[in-house]
Amino acid sequence: MRHSEQQCRSYQQAIELIGKRWTGVIIMVLLAGPRRFNESAERLEGASDRMLSERLKDLEATGILERCVYPETPVGLEYRLTEKGKALAPVIDAIQQWGHEWPTASPLPAT
Amino acid sequence: MRHSEQQCRSYQQAIELIGKRWTGVIIMVLLAGPRRFNESAERLEGASDRMLSERLKDLEATGILERCVYPETPVGLEYRLTEKGKALAPVIDAIQQWGHEWPTASPLPAT
Repeated sequence: MRHSEQQCRSYQQAIELIGKRWTGVIIMVLLAGPRRFNESAERLEGASDRMLSERLKDLEATGILERCVYPETPVGLEYRLTEKGKALAPVIDAIQQWGHEWPTASPLPAT
Repeated sequence: MRHSEQQCRSYQQAIELIGKRWTGVIIMVLLAGPRRFNESAERLEGASDRMLSERLKDLEATGILERCVYPETPVGLEYRLTEKGKALAPVIDAIQQWGHEWPTASPLPAT
């Protein structure tokens, strides 16, 4: 079997989508159920609101999640995974499990 | 459950490793068994020898594969996955399967 550029592209597109910083954990959080923006932010220590907001927008654009707006004051936003997003569960699980079993020597900054 | 920066880092390290261009297909090729450099090159249409050589070096440095040198003329090089590399099989499978089931609209260059 030969591995063509087309096969590589399909793998590459998938991995670029899930490879961005925080994307994996955002999907992990939403796999547990739909979340309001603030709830998501609370569950993601270390991610700025701006970063989180950008990632959520990216993931909406690629059809991984959908946004529901509630007519409240202030306006309530809820994010939930689409079927395409939910289908990422085995991918996220496999990466997490491998990362846990085979930790990479961490290039921690010298203190 | 909260998702801390540490958890994110472990996921991120794993995904950066497997997210580089050609890394996935190189691992796919080597999952089928150890390969000589030339055999690998033949199975990876579209990857330059230089690109392939760089990726193989990266993957050796991170303990995903090991290189065996055979005293021949010219010198024979064989690459094989380590246990850490073989453990990536379920990750690669899951990404491929998702990419196949949920193809991303491809930003193909206009011709």
